[in-house]
Amino acid sequence: MDNQFLKNGSISIHPDVLALKDKAQKEGLETIWERFAAQQPQCGFCELGLSCRICVMGPCRIDPFGDGPQRGVCGADADIMVARNLARMVAAGAASHSDHGRDLLETLLAVGEGKAPGFGITDQAKLDRLAAEFGVAGDLPPLPKAKELALAMMEEYGIKKGYLTFTRRLPAARLEKWRNLGIDPRGVDWEVTEMMHRTHMGVDNDAVSLLVQALRCALADGWGGSMIATEISDVLFGTPKPTASQVNLAVLQGDRVNLILHGHSPLVSEMVARAAQDPELVARAQELGATGINLVGLCCTGNEVLMRQGIPMAGNHLVQELALITGAVEAMVVDYQCIMPSLGDLAACYHTKFFTTSPKAKFPGATHLPFTPENGAALGRDLVAQAVENFARRRPERVLIPGAPVSQVSGFSVEVIEQALGGTWDPLLNAIKAGQIRGAVGVVGCNNPKVIHDYGHTTLTRKLIENDILVVDTGCAAVAHAKAGFKRPEAAELAGPGLKAVCQALGIPPVLHMGSCVDNTRIVNLAAVLANALGVDLDQLPLAAAAPEWYSEKAATIACYAVASGIYTVLGVMPPVLGSAAVTDLLLNGLETHLGATFAVEPDPAKAADLIMKHVEGKRRALGLEAR
Amino acid sequence: MDNQFLKNGSISIHPDVLALKDKAQKEGLETIWERFAAQQPQCGFCELGLSCRICVMGPCRIDPFGDGPQRGVCGADADIMVARNLARMVAAGAASHSDHGRDLLETLLAVGEGKAPGFGITDQAKLDRLAAEFGVAGDLPPLPKAKELALAMMEEYGIKKGYLTFTRRLPAARLEKWRNLGIDPRGVDWEVTEMMHRTHMGVDNDAVSLLVQALRCALADGWGGSMIATEISDVLFGTPKPTASQVNLAVLQGDRVNLILHGHSPLVSEMVARAAQDPELVARAQELGATGINLVGLCCTGNEVLMRQGIPMAGNHLVQELALITGAVEAMVVDYQCIMPSLGDLAACYHTKFFTTSPKAKFPGATHLPFTPENGAALGRDLVAQAVENFARRRPERVLIPGAPVSQVSGFSVEVIEQALGGTWDPLLNAIKAGQIRGAVGVVGCNNPKVIHDYGHTTLTRKLIENDILVVDTGCAAVAHAKAGFKRPEAAELAGPGLKAVCQALGIPPVLHMGSCVDNTRIVNLAAVLANALGVDLDQLPLAAAAPEWYSEKAATIACYAVASGIYTVLGVMPPVLGSAAVTDLLLNGLETHLGATFAVEPDPAKAADLIMKHVEGKRRALGLEAR
Repeated sequence: MDNQFLKNGSISIHPDVLALKDKAQKEGLETIWERFAAQQPQCGFCELGLSCRICVMGPCRIDPFGDGPQRGVCGADADIMVARNLARMVAAGAASHSDHGRDLLETLLAVGEGKAPGFGITDQAKLDRLAAEFGVAGDLPPLPKAKELALAMMEEYGIKKGYLTFTRRLPAARLEKWRNLGIDPRGVDWEVTEMMHRTHMGVDNDAVSLLVQALRCALADGWGGSMIATEISDVLFGTPKPTASQVNLAVLQGDRVNLILHGHSPLVSEMVARAAQDPELVARAQELGATGINLVGLCCTGNEVLMRQGIPMAGNHLVQELALITGAVEAMVVDYQCIMPSLGDLAACYHTKFFTTSPKAKFPGATHLPFTPENGAALGRDLVAQAVENFARRRPERVLIPGAPVSQVSGFSVEVIEQALGGTWDPLLNAIKAGQIRGAVGVVGCNNPKVIHDYGHTTLTRKLIENDILVVDTGCAAVAHAKAGFKRPEAAELAGPGLKAVCQALGIPPVLHMGSCVDNTRIVNLAAVLANALGVDLDQLPLAAAAPEWYSEKAATIACYAVASGIYTVLGVMPPVLGSAAVTDLLLNGLETHLGATFAVEPDPAKAADLIMKHVEGKRRALGLEAR
Repeated sequence: MDNQFLKNGSISIHPDVLALKDKAQKEGLETIWERFAAQQPQCGFCELGLSCRICVMGPCRIDPFGDGPQRGVCGADADIMVARNLARMVAAGAASHSDHGRDLLETLLAVGEGKAPGFGITDQAKLDRLAAEFGVAGDLPPLPKAKELALAMMEEYGIKKGYLTFTRRLPAARLEKWRNLGIDPRGVDWEVTEMMHRTHMGVDNDAVSLLVQALRCALADGWGGSMIATEISDVLFGTPKPTASQVNLAVLQGDRVNLILHGHSPLVSEMVARAAQDPELVARAQELGATGINLVGLCCTGNEVLMRQGIPMAGNHLVQELALITGAVEAMVVDYQCIMPSLGDLAACYHTKFFTTSPKAKFPGATHLPFTPENGAALGRDLVAQAVENFARRRPERVLIPGAPVSQVSGFSVEVIEQALGGTWDPLLNAIKAGQIRGAVGVVGCNNPKVIHDYGHTTLTRKLIENDILVVDTGCAAVAHAKAGFKRPEAAELAGPGLKAVCQALGIPPVLHMGSCVDNTRIVNLAAVLANALGVDLDQLPLAAAAPEWYSEKAATIACYAVASGIYTVLGVMPPVLGSAAVTDLLLNGLETHLGATFAVEPDPAKAADLIMKHVEGKRRALGLEAR
């Protein structure tokens, strides 16, 4: 792998990150970059996808140079091995986001049954729309309707229904492509389980067949579990609206009780956000010498509460350890996904309390206070109270909060983009047709120590907006963009003349924050809306996606559902597929005929921008639009 | 690992296997043993569970000697890494057997809807019992009842029901243990998906929490998906009854059209079995110079058709390649699981046609004719017809069918064991109480080239029956025992005096064949029946299980549901856990308090027998029975 960090030793483009990394070093604390360096050289067999431990006849390895074994003990060759390993990554990613969606459904059901004090229906209009979409009687009162919707959506996880309702939002042409390829997903958990079955020894031993099922599994996430997560989060906590907030480690405040919300789910974090406004708790914080309570977010739990509540964002994946190293954090409350198991040890080096709240996710060194829909409100209050009490234990001499907050506007759900356009998609479509906006690109995904922190996201996005391409983002990428200032309306100045004019006319930044990584469903939804408005399939639109710094299995799954939805997707980090020419070729070329989209891999974000611009112009040309 | 094959070069205890291995060598054909040798040395990190490629920040490795890295890039330590890897094995195993169960349900539904010509209800009494168990109206006619039962059972795979009906067959004390530990399974696919979620980077980072969910996931298989597979197979094709048949590669016949049924599902194989009796096809075979059509089974598809139709058994896992090397096989028809991807190449070295029939499982070099409930009967006929036509292409000079068939009696479902006892469990319970039979042990599981083929199974079982322990078996173990002659009623002579007398009185062998590996549910069901009859929990019974030669993820899952059901389980091959002292200790000791059972690992089958006898006598003592 082309490894930028190891090549030049720089870890991040951000001075606040570098300052805290320096503090960590002085304090003798290990962070992810030391662990990454210690793992070098990483196993070449695993990196190429050429090792298999699916059964205990193995572990097996295939020699990529052709001198050693070319088959595993069972007889699996490189193509089978690589495809099985990739397929299991996709299954795990789909499982993760979809299981998150299940948690939202369980809470919606509890709300409908009156068993979730503190929770309620915040977006009744969305509840009504979803109920209609899922065939729930329209004349039910809110709570019974919520209950019936939850039960109807639970069928998406089962095996009796056989299709996913949200997929019917897509143009008929897309569904026909899926049916021809056999990837119209049938059930969320079903596709995950079948993927795991097919990758068992001696089941599916055909790389194409395995990858086709991986695409179906990914679609069951993107148009199933993940989309349920997004939509029901909106019903329970409100559909995001443009909100001014801030980003950077400096959103932590020296004179207030700092509580960090980290992970991916809004369930606990929304309850914490409510409790943090409790006058009693605020008074208690003041009694202890703080000026108040300061909630900040990290990673995608941060995105959830930023999008809906405007809670400031401390940082993305690679910042999670450094946030504790500020020494200014009274409590970190985590739910699940992308939470480093090193955090407990780090918290113990300071006064910080580290709370785990998901029954599915325990961590070393954590206090475990498991969430249920029934206890959520009380749990939120308890967590804030414990953070407040902990303020007294903070050691000011160990505190360093470098840098300054950067302002950002967040909260661009599909619904508010439509509203911002005046209730019709025509202004956007006309701007695209006229060439003012060349196209739109979702820049999404994680951080990865193999890439200089946020360099991939910001370099790619800067070049895209300079070239009049509208960028929508989610997840860690969205945090990178915000830190770079791309989410201030005045960032319109950074855009090319066409995009700049549109942004200024609408008062929006050129990079629109659409949410957490589970909310990549908002992006594919937007693509479907635009395709339907134009009467074309998604792959005909001048769209693309990119994940310049991805690391997680969820990102692999998202990339698969993006491509299967017809969106060309450029990865900045190579997935473990190079051990198989067949798998690599299928991903980079073979899917075009069937899905109208492919993957590309380009570690250099500037070159990735070139690939994307070429793609966008090609799509414009095919639509008969002016093209460069 | 202690590797018997590599130590002394012997591969199998069976002369017919050695003869065909010799033929393969002379013909220049590679088999699993060459591939296994070529893989030496196998990766020590992978063998210890100390490598992780769950995300692309990795791959990571932990140095078991303590000199190199002790944490992966994310911060995961050895315990987390080992537990996550093991948990994913269990998830894949549960997914495999449960997805097999889903196929049976889909066919039952199609039968109920009149859409599966050739299929029907064979065991109406079992359909009635299951319908009552699942709350289906008792007065429905057979087909509507089948449909309603299929739909009711599909709920076990979903998330609305929240428990598995079959678990209610267990004593209340067992369910209470599960609830205390949080492992009462909620839904089949749900548990698999949650396991995959929990093992994503940054979710569950506690070895105990991960392994507890692995047990729940395994239970969702054993008392969910797998049990559905067994029960619905019985409904559709008949509950097994004692049947005389034969075993060995010599069940292939030089003068007949040989068709091998291989894999795990009865769906296609039952249709093939029916078609093979078609007088037209038999006449055509005779026209082509054969004396008839000879169906034989391999692995667990073989066990399915042996148990119900008495079709002779050619061999188990390590014999699958050698069966083709006889040169006497006109067609091999496979469905899924444990099918070596080398078979297509091997078939091409002879005249053999290699057919794949599951839409989920394609193989290199195969002709793919996918099964559906609608086309099953026609497919069965087509497959037999193609095998018959291929007889003309056989090259007699390349045929070698060594050895001679060994007779066996098979087909011991729980129902027929009860019947054999005179409709009451008292004779068996009394024999156990009196000490004539000391206890009962399930000897199950696969083959693995790390163990001399069938040495583990036969050595263990011989010693157990000599010591008056009744053995029940499934899967590859059952084939090993049959080849050793343990399934002839006259094998009672091999048993100790107490067991011998019981076997002779009942006219049964001392080793009772209970089916395919999915049918390990018959064994835990039998354990539950005995526990309920005695009014105790399962862990109080003088029972044990062993998998002396296991290789597959399914076997890991079966072992987990056996232990979680209260049955002490001895593995002959080490799972990849030794990299974590915490995980190893939990499996070997820590579960005793919560579940009344543990794992043990003992590569020497004679020593495994000693462990088991000690365990059985200990349980007898605790029950107040005479003990040695």
